Amino acid sequence: MTALAHDTVTLLTDFGTAGGAVGVLHSVIRQFAPGVGVVDLSHEVAPFDTRGASVLLARSVQYLCPGVILVGVDPTVGTGRRLVAIEVAEGRAVFVGPDNGVLAAGISMLGGAERAVCLDNSEYHLPTTATTASSRDVLAPVAGHLCSGVPLSELGSELDPAGLMPGIIPIARHEGAELVAEVLSVDRFGNLQLNLSPEDIELVGDQLTVIAAGFRRSLRIAASYEAIGSGLALVVDADGLITVCANRSSAAEELGLGIGDPVTVTVDEGDAPASVAVSVNLGPRPKSTSPSGGIE
Amino acid sequence: MTALAHDTVTLLTDFGTAGGAVGVLHSVIRQFAPGVGVVDLSHEVAPFDTRGASVLLARSVQYLCPGVILVGVDPTVGTGRRLVAIEVAEGRAVFVGPDNGVLAAGISMLGGAERAVCLDNSEYHLPTTATTASSRDVLAPVAGHLCSGVPLSELGSELDPAGLMPGIIPIARHEGAELVAEVLSVDRFGNLQLNLSPEDIELVGDQLTVIAAGFRRSLRIAASYEAIGSGLALVVDADGLITVCANRSSAAEELGLGIGDPVTVTVDEGDAPASVAVSVNLGPRPKSTSPSGGIE
Amino acid sequence: MTALAHDTVTLLTDFGTAGGAVGVLHSVIRQFAPGVGVVDLSHEVAPFDTRGASVLLARSVQYLCPGVILVGVDPTVGTGRRLVAIEVAEGRAVFVGPDNGVLAAGISMLGGAERAVCLDNSEYHLPTTATTASSRDVLAPVAGHLCSGVPLSELGSELDPAGLMPGIIPIARHEGAELVAEVLSVDRFGNLQLNLSPEDIELVGDQLTVIAAGFRRSLRIAASYEAIGSGLALVVDADGLITVCANRSSAAEELGLGIGDPVTVTVDEGDAPASVAVSVNLGPRPKSTSPSGGIE
Repeated sequence: MTALAHDTVTLLTDFGTAGGAVGVLHSVIRQFAPGVGVVDLSHEVAPFDTRGASVLLARSVQYLCPGVILVGVDPTVGTGRRLVAIEVAEGRAVFVGPDNGVLAAGISMLGGAERAVCLDNSEYHLPTTATTASSRDVLAPVAGHLCSGVPLSELGSELDPAGLMPGIIPIARHEGAELVAEVLSVDRFGNLQLNLSPEDIELVGDQLTVIAAGFRRSLRIAASYEAIGSGLALVVDADGLITVCANRSSAAEELGLGIGDPVTVTVDEGDAPASVAVSVNLGPRPKSTSPSGGIE
Repeated sequence: MTALAHDTVTLLTDFGTAGGAVGVLHSVIRQFAPGVGVVDLSHEVAPFDTRGASVLLARSVQYLCPGVILVGVDPTVGTGRRLVAIEVAEGRAVFVGPDNGVLAAGISMLGGAERAVCLDNSEYHLPTTATTASSRDVLAPVAGHLCSGVPLSELGSELDPAGLMPGIIPIARHEGAELVAEVLSVDRFGNLQLNLSPEDIELVGDQLTVIAAGFRRSLRIAASYEAIGSGLALVVDADGLITVCANRSSAAEELGLGIGDPVTVTVDEGDAPASVAVSVNLGPRPKSTSPSGGIE
Repeated sequence: MTALAHDTVTLLTDFGTAGGAVGVLHSVIRQFAPGVGVVDLSHEVAPFDTRGASVLLARSVQYLCPGVILVGVDPTVGTGRRLVAIEVAEGRAVFVGPDNGVLAAGISMLGGAERAVCLDNSEYHLPTTATTASSRDVLAPVAGHLCSGVPLSELGSELDPAGLMPGIIPIARHEGAELVAEVLSVDRFGNLQLNLSPEDIELVGDQLTVIAAGFRRSLRIAASYEAIGSGLALVVDADGLITVCANRSSAAEELGLGIGDPVTVTVDEGDAPASVAVSVNLGPRPKSTSPSGGIE
């Protein structure tokens, strides 16, 4: 086995794991790049949810292995929408996926696109008549070829990175003394992740009022899930974002909130700071000191 | 680490991933064949659904890595039913599993069984008193041994491949001007895959009437999901089969149809061709030009 | 790539696979130990269910690859609860996880803790301000470092293994002529696994009365699922434990029983032995003769 140009392909799709499509992606990639490692970031993005995939990618990307990151979340598969490969971080990572905005936030977390091509060289695809399986027929073989050393420029026509579809992550906004945020994601434990960083909240105060879906509650920031005691609190989660949590129960269920629902954060009465600056920030944290070198 | 006879084991079971049985399969295989890659095709076959597993295997098998393909879907585990290993494609792939018909369609897609043995040499099994864990105790160690170079003939008594249990995939049939098909599978997006190829449909016409579960609708063939616009249409899916689809919603939910339900396809009135020839065909597509060589 | 001290990390968490946390664990481990294999035992432990994780670990551990076993099931994450690494089997396996009892039964199956450290050397962690992501920020990098050869003693202060939190697996008890057991787990097929071994049952008799949740039934021991015929029976399952099963249907559904529910086993009237000795035994079976050597 010859040395690989990249030793890892990371997968993010909305395929689910039941139907075999994910196993086929692994199989195709391994055939074009024997010995490569394939890591499943998630295959349970909600069907067609480019926004959810984008959020998941942005908050995970700093931890991923250098290599190829394949994103198969594409509601418009089979139409004219182009597939692209985008190099970042001086070639340490290459994203492959549809040019529909799903990649943008992840790419931005790694410093932005450096080079891009449209995947229009069918020599590097599986021969196929299917129009609805571009992850299997285009993205997976291209990922394998990149790992086995095929240069980016071979895979198709060069693109101006400035012309790529922009991202789709919602940004919290400031309305008077209020921060109008929304639920970015809900985890398995029912914790509601908001598009707010601790810095946003600090400027508002310690004791906050959270308004959503007909409720209005005064919540404090807790240092851990256990420290919540009973009821709800705000916890800074693993992504560095503000999360509405209950201790060992589901805040999502208790409040009836889900992804995309608006949540307004404001200061408790009598405790308003003079001014509130909003700087939304999707979770950058200190860099890993991985001995083998991360993507960043 | 010495070179492996096969470098990949692909798994297909109805175990689910919650209970640890799949992790144990990986662990056992890796211990008998250090360095082997293990690919999960699916573990979410419905419990005991040999037919569903058979369909999934048949439509995926041409994409799988050469090596061992382990199928653990066996409603009669622990009875006298024999376990087998079946070599295909001049030894590039070996299927291991129960002789209950679940392997037949996959084997047939790769050109048919060439050699077969009954896995009755317990030297290559885990020592066990369990009667209900043959995937863990027989199939996984056998898969590992095959990868590490144990010859097929060592694993048990030779069998005549002609005596293996035949397959269980339903074939569409022709009744007058109608094609009586059924739903082979339903994917995560609610698309209903029928046991019909584009060639079957072409002979009937462009504008078709689909009859199922009390509805009768005129549907056309759309080039992609996006091209459906609103309502339903027929799309040739990634397996090369005819699928009843809605654009970004679930056709299965809209029609109340599920796996095994009958679906009749006929020509719209006034548009019947003189004769209709039915040739059902489970999705063979152009061969992969994988540089490292596929199974076929 | 240099040789690894351990070539496999096995993961057991309650994270689910949807949110990306599992993919991030794989990614972090691979960056600290390039070439390591990562096996998913399960990520679908019920949220916070240390007891369920403990049972799953105990019944699987004898099959796992030698190496590092990482357990991320920790309802008190972010509090003062310590994280530990525990060496067993003369260093062939190292458990890393919270010191909350979840590891105890698995460790005991492998002969008990030999050395232990508290993971308080932050040099081997990811730099982070998050308090709720210790699997990602502490356990995963520590697992990687162990695989790449960092000695246990480097990872933190030595602990007396006798001071580790004891286990949490329920033990059946003897009340007169009755065995009072409980449901340890329910698998995907609806089989109810009890904390009873065949030896426990043998002492009671062949024809048993099972009492639970308002039902009282006479059940016999069947040799396989298929041998049940219709109705319910007791089957010795793959873990060597007594299971209440139906043939191709769900005993859990039929009886309305779930994890933790009490189940009493007694002898049928007129068939009571003179005395009943209870020896509960979580599934040890004959040792694997794996050519590459198991943990044991």
